[in-house]
Amino acid sequence: MNLKYEAALAALGEISSSMRVGLGTGSTAEELVKLLASSLQRGALHNIRCTSTSNATEQLARSLDIPMATLDELFPLDLTIDGADEIDLSLRLIKGRGGALLREKIVEQASERFIVIADESKLVERLGVGPLPVEVTPFAVKVLTAAFETMNLAPVLRMRGAQPLVTDEGNRILDVQIPPDRDIADVVSELRTHAGVVETGFFPNEATAAIIATAQGIRRIP
Amino acid sequence: MNLKYEAALAALGEISSSMRVGLGTGSTAEELVKLLASSLQRGALHNIRCTSTSNATEQLARSLDIPMATLDELFPLDLTIDGADEIDLSLRLIKGRGGALLREKIVEQASERFIVIADESKLVERLGVGPLPVEVTPFAVKVLTAAFETMNLAPVLRMRGAQPLVTDEGNRILDVQIPPDRDIADVVSELRTHAGVVETGFFPNEATAAIIATAQGIRRIP
Repeated sequence: MNLKYEAALAALGEISSSMRVGLGTGSTAEELVKLLASSLQRGALHNIRCTSTSNATEQLARSLDIPMATLDELFPLDLTIDGADEIDLSLRLIKGRGGALLREKIVEQASERFIVIADESKLVERLGVGPLPVEVTPFAVKVLTAAFETMNLAPVLRMRGAQPLVTDEGNRILDVQIPPDRDIADVVSELRTHAGVVETGFFPNEATAAIIATAQGIRRIP
Repeated sequence: MNLKYEAALAALGEISSSMRVGLGTGSTAEELVKLLASSLQRGALHNIRCTSTSNATEQLARSLDIPMATLDELFPLDLTIDGADEIDLSLRLIKGRGGALLREKIVEQASERFIVIADESKLVERLGVGPLPVEVTPFAVKVLTAAFETMNLAPVLRMRGAQPLVTDEGNRILDVQIPPDRDIADVVSELRTHAGVVETGFFPNEATAAIIATAQGIRRIP
């Protein structure tokens, strides 16, 4: 069973005709984009206008003939559907391991509802199992690396091949580890006092609901 | 009497040989750059290495043969000297009307001491006499303009001629007004919950001292 597909299929039911919809980035969000394209082709949905959270999603959606517009043309959005890397039971998220965290957060904050979709492996008791992506301005990469090392966050500059990854907004990503004895919200609050931090992958209150696909079926939060 | 020159001259006395120095941006900081170049030429100071807070300062300093390096090569810095647009008696600042706020804040946070220099017109009882610059990522300009209008901040996109100003880091600037009934720290805290805000021109605790030139002489804070 493809749990990413199952989560996306359940989320498709939340989209109604005439909605303005934000499309997420990553493998689970891609399933939703494909299902939405199929619904539009069958005529099950109509008059949908979408905007994307990354250049990659933009290209995929256009290739499937989904009507796309810019966020500027559409906001506020009715609904955004996107994946996450980690989800806790309070609907706090870590996102951005795909590198699109900044546009994702901008689009999701501009949406009345944001439904996060995932397979059950993404549901965690405590955020910080894996790294937290921190998007930083290029000028500050070395200074922030040193500062985060002093904070015991073990920063790693994300690479694409032999070069630092460049985000859609022209920034870099430092992946940091949340120390096990600290709450992610406190760490993020401290991080953000450093100039050059553009955004983090911690989404404390953006998600309004989660649709989690498990081997036993769909679980919804709340 | 040129008060900007007087403030810069007093600050020059804080620079000792062998220091790593951050050079600010704007008309008062330019006076300091010229005075420093003159001291180096006369041999009154030696073995100084500097880094700049903007491409404009970088060019000026190089044209005057000041030994320049990148922040990455020099940090932590011993001292940064820079101007400000508004200064209160608690050494809180508004900066960035020259457009260089992000690099300025990065450099100043990477300095053991940051001395702000200004003429007396910059000393205010309450920050927010003029606009607060907010550096934003290009993708979010329209969404943030709408959000700041809702917050009654009267945002204005800064222009350079007929085009939006592009900062050294590739961002845009929205100049906002602090409502008279609100403290700037609260407004900034609320602003920064919006994804796409890269940095603001509010410097709550970066400055370690101020040198203010008045018609009656130099005033130092603290």
